[in-house]
Amino acid sequence: MQFLSDNAAPVHPSVWEAMRRADATDAPYDNDALSQSLDAAFSDLFGRECAVVWISTGTAANCLALATLVPPYGGVVCHDDAHIEQDEAGAPEFFTHGAKLMLAHGPHAKLTPQNVAAVIDPIRDDVHRVQPTAIAITQATEQGCVYAPGEIAGLVDYARSKGLKVHMDGARFGNAVAHLNCTPADAGPAHGIDTLSFGMIKNGGMGAEALVLFNPASAAEAKRRHKRAGQLQSKGRYLAAQLLAMLKDDLWLANARNANDAAARIAAAAGSRLLHPCEANEVFLRLSVAESERLRQQGFGFYDWGVGAARFVTAWNTDADDAERLAQAIAAL
Amino acid sequence: MQFLSDNAAPVHPSVWEAMRRADATDAPYDNDALSQSLDAAFSDLFGRECAVVWISTGTAANCLALATLVPPYGGVVCHDDAHIEQDEAGAPEFFTHGAKLMLAHGPHAKLTPQNVAAVIDPIRDDVHRVQPTAIAITQATEQGCVYAPGEIAGLVDYARSKGLKVHMDGARFGNAVAHLNCTPADAGPAHGIDTLSFGMIKNGGMGAEALVLFNPASAAEAKRRHKRAGQLQSKGRYLAAQLLAMLKDDLWLANARNANDAAARIAAAAGSRLLHPCEANEVFLRLSVAESERLRQQGFGFYDWGVGAARFVTAWNTDADDAERLAQAIAAL
Amino acid sequence: MQFLSDNAAPVHPSVWEAMRRADATDAPYDNDALSQSLDAAFSDLFGRECAVVWISTGTAANCLALATLVPPYGGVVCHDDAHIEQDEAGAPEFFTHGAKLMLAHGPHAKLTPQNVAAVIDPIRDDVHRVQPTAIAITQATEQGCVYAPGEIAGLVDYARSKGLKVHMDGARFGNAVAHLNCTPADAGPAHGIDTLSFGMIKNGGMGAEALVLFNPASAAEAKRRHKRAGQLQSKGRYLAAQLLAMLKDDLWLANARNANDAAARIAAAAGSRLLHPCEANEVFLRLSVAESERLRQQGFGFYDWGVGAARFVTAWNTDADDAERLAQAIAAL
Amino acid sequence: MQFLSDNAAPVHPSVWEAMRRADATDAPYDNDALSQSLDAAFSDLFGRECAVVWISTGTAANCLALATLVPPYGGVVCHDDAHIEQDEAGAPEFFTHGAKLMLAHGPHAKLTPQNVAAVIDPIRDDVHRVQPTAIAITQATEQGCVYAPGEIAGLVDYARSKGLKVHMDGARFGNAVAHLNCTPADAGPAHGIDTLSFGMIKNGGMGAEALVLFNPASAAEAKRRHKRAGQLQSKGRYLAAQLLAMLKDDLWLANARNANDAAARIAAAAGSRLLHPCEANEVFLRLSVAESERLRQQGFGFYDWGVGAARFVTAWNTDADDAERLAQAIAAL
Repeated sequence: MQFLSDNAAPVHPSVWEAMRRADATDAPYDNDALSQSLDAAFSDLFGRECAVVWISTGTAANCLALATLVPPYGGVVCHDDAHIEQDEAGAPEFFTHGAKLMLAHGPHAKLTPQNVAAVIDPIRDDVHRVQPTAIAITQATEQGCVYAPGEIAGLVDYARSKGLKVHMDGARFGNAVAHLNCTPADAGPAHGIDTLSFGMIKNGGMGAEALVLFNPASAAEAKRRHKRAGQLQSKGRYLAAQLLAMLKDDLWLANARNANDAAARIAAAAGSRLLHPCEANEVFLRLSVAESERLRQQGFGFYDWGVGAARFVTAWNTDADDAERLAQAIAAL
Repeated sequence: MQFLSDNAAPVHPSVWEAMRRADATDAPYDNDALSQSLDAAFSDLFGRECAVVWISTGTAANCLALATLVPPYGGVVCHDDAHIEQDEAGAPEFFTHGAKLMLAHGPHAKLTPQNVAAVIDPIRDDVHRVQPTAIAITQATEQGCVYAPGEIAGLVDYARSKGLKVHMDGARFGNAVAHLNCTPADAGPAHGIDTLSFGMIKNGGMGAEALVLFNPASAAEAKRRHKRAGQLQSKGRYLAAQLLAMLKDDLWLANARNANDAAARIAAAAGSRLLHPCEANEVFLRLSVAESERLRQQGFGFYDWGVGAARFVTAWNTDADDAERLAQAIAAL
Repeated sequence: MQFLSDNAAPVHPSVWEAMRRADATDAPYDNDALSQSLDAAFSDLFGRECAVVWISTGTAANCLALATLVPPYGGVVCHDDAHIEQDEAGAPEFFTHGAKLMLAHGPHAKLTPQNVAAVIDPIRDDVHRVQPTAIAITQATEQGCVYAPGEIAGLVDYARSKGLKVHMDGARFGNAVAHLNCTPADAGPAHGIDTLSFGMIKNGGMGAEALVLFNPASAAEAKRRHKRAGQLQSKGRYLAAQLLAMLKDDLWLANARNANDAAARIAAAAGSRLLHPCEANEVFLRLSVAESERLRQQGFGFYDWGVGAARFVTAWNTDADDAERLAQAIAAL
Repeated sequence: MQFLSDNAAPVHPSVWEAMRRADATDAPYDNDALSQSLDAAFSDLFGRECAVVWISTGTAANCLALATLVPPYGGVVCHDDAHIEQDEAGAPEFFTHGAKLMLAHGPHAKLTPQNVAAVIDPIRDDVHRVQPTAIAITQATEQGCVYAPGEIAGLVDYARSKGLKVHMDGARFGNAVAHLNCTPADAGPAHGIDTLSFGMIKNGGMGAEALVLFNPASAAEAKRRHKRAGQLQSKGRYLAAQLLAMLKDDLWLANARNANDAAARIAAAAGSRLLHPCEANEVFLRLSVAESERLRQQGFGFYDWGVGAARFVTAWNTDADDAERLAQAIAAL
């Protein structure tokens, strides 16, 4: 029973079917009918005009978004635990040609106007200092927590007051919406964010994320950077098909709900072991080496998360019985 | 009847099956068993130790290879019609951090020691001039021609004598091998090239090319650059599956042969219209506007190629009857 | 008697004096009174509002200008003999983060609407091709020729019609104005160019060029890039002093006239050996190896310029008698 | 009485004289006799073979050094108060093509094996994380403190054990040597550092720093990057002359001693106000707004340094009486 990563999950059957249907010959790159329909489909979902670029990884989605928002000599405020800082191998610096990540500190990997201000207020506005140009937030966060609509709105207002753009890393955006039980727009786009990487791969897709640009005029630049980064696949219709399948009948939401429910079951059994509120599909627990060992002997797979802690991740296909078994095993420690 | 691009072809059924079989949960990124087996599979194919990185596009494969061979302040000699110069949106400059493409001229988009020398001999070896560091050749070339083993050997020897590395863009490497009727090693790797992008997508794959590094010690650097470029997909097993399916029973070769045969049939009908020898799966013809129009009215799809010329591309799935119909239509012009 | 390079000339006495006067303590970087006065001084010279950044080399001046005009994914059309292509070691690619130089061909190293069109008209406007964003011209050109005001106006009009910015490399701008006998504005700025690197070093300065931005709103970005490139010297007042000394009483023009007069004397003696009209301070001659040898034996220093040719450069301090001696020696060959 | 910055100091008379002597025509760029003598002069100073590149700013010296040590996908551990992090506008990212600065924390802006280990030990060695490649230390530090020879030796040993290169930012290297009263080698080079930017500008020069490469084989690469960054001035003999004048009769050391003595006098009067030991030419004091105001009314110029603190910097030309007056004024607060 695997709780290592939602990245390891299989592809959802509906996504497979949509890909197979895309097999008929069509125009290469993103000139096919499916790719051409993405802008409308996502504009519809968010109730707001947007342009969408399919892209093969969340790394590329986030970094390409930042490259359209931030000049090489600018800075991006993010949490010190942000994926773009910790786990993307310098991709933000590569795509932006050297912009600087500026690290804010705070609980649950969340930015707030206060912890962003603590980073940017001391920065003198002169040519010797890199100036912040954008903030990047993750919905749900790297610690499994979710920004409420009001928190997003507050952050965007604050960012605007400082002249900063806002990017949302939505690797688990579906899980956030499922938790909030709100419209997808309300989980971010409605409040004025500039760009969103809407993660589909962990949530049932194969190799297509949606980079959503809420300033459609920036699409031309984004598409040049996308090609220049070697991301413009020649058989793009298979990527578009994945995204459209995820949108169809809100499959993304159903999948996220399944993952969240399994995580909630596990978290409920964890009691005071919980390191962060479990609001999406990740459960972070205090766990001694001996306890971890005992769980692994029962067949549960998961990552240690620093010393004395562990991370359990559920996915769209996590079996409720497996989650139940893990919950009971944790309770029994 | 579509002869626009092999990029538009569907995915081969055997590739689909292999992808479906990869659906079982496995480790993310390239830690799965399939990805881990690639080095051995390609080393076996080429009879030479190599490391292999799956990657989503030929653009990225070529440019990542160049980034491991050429410093930012170096230069790459390529043909003025090379895909990396003409059609990759500045990706070589992006991945290499600004290396310069140095353009050689000659028939059939081929480099020779002579036309490379014409580029590099006049370059003074001082700090004011960008110094050449590598050459990049395309097998088959952008004009549908194939380097014979002896030509490759001669070029590599020449390059070595000048201290230059050699990259081979093999977007249509399978078609070249099919034409040469030699071992895959003999079409390039056996002669000492440093890197090869072995194209699978045009030839029956979906979204996975093989970047082959014949200096396996460079794999560590290549993998860091690969991740940093947003190319390390989290469900990499689906890409590895594609590559392995193409290798199995030499599917890549059978597919390439089918495409080449169809192209040969068309070329045979073209007579003096042929602009380049047809040695792979592309046919370049002299064709007036009126003649193009006539062919299109008969339902043939193809691209104009400059003024008074046109390109017809066949693919792994081109129907022999369709090729025959096109051949007859051309003969009847 | 040295005709190798105006780069080897000493510093003009008036420049030395101005530098010594700047020795009194003042604010660091470009916060001193002299640096702060540059915008006004150059705006006055050109009769047009501009912002000026001192910078230590022409290389940096040209490339920083291009970085403000061209995105990393854009292109710059220049002559194939342009200094930015031939002699700046990839600096344009470094400062612009990989923009592509697109090479036009034509006599005397001059761009014309026709030879620019030959480069850009075939470029399809799609994401696969790097799109041209700017043109860069050199006044006087790398072959010692000068654009007439009407030629500049025509080129700028053409560039505007194509949506292209215009940079002027004015390493020998003073020599061009001296030849044209026009206002400095008329030699370029009056016709709508966007940026000018006004060369002072070859013409009597020590280590300060003037980067002139005719869109003063771009100064903030240029100054960030300038600092980021390690060009913001801490004792900037010594650079500002050089530029102001060159402007005072039109020293730049007097110096350029001296150099041009010496070159004209040499060119007049060269007759049919002249490879290009001598319009500035460089003389390019057909010269056999034996003839070159004979001149060198008489003590004349100069560079061979390819096979069977040589370049003679005069400077602000070239002695008229030396030029006369060289002229007679050439006539006597 | 100005204690704002040693960057504002004038040029030392001996430096002026050496520059004037360099006025005779010589070869351009760094082909002149003075530039060609630098390697030997510095090798002699440090008792160790090295290559030296003159360069116009400390920013460029530090960042060019890092570019030769660190690949674009690597990391540099430095103190969070390091100049390269705080005050160089992203130049390290520009010159290295996006390497990441990794921030260590500790008193007096000093790195130690312990605080470096706290940064690098948690970094998993996988492709998702940027891996550290070098450490950068500042001698004297940004808080006016000096590494003892044993501290340097310990850090270099530690770095070597981790496979890391070591760069020393020596903007105030002379002040450090003056404080240590040791050989210049012992203040860093003797212990195995890879590169040193030896600051001359604050200490009596005009616009030339010495980038010292203790692996002379790296000089060829460094010189290409130097040219590519627009740092290769055409009249380089004036920069070489500055460096040689500073070396002559150890002018750099005499100048540093004067600055240190003045700072020591001020620090001695500061008592418990001192925020860091005064070991070079910077004095950091606790100072209320009212106290700062009182000092300024007496004609003392200095920068506030955060809230409730101020920085006083002395220079090679600081008058002992002025320092005495400031010392008394501080004592009288």
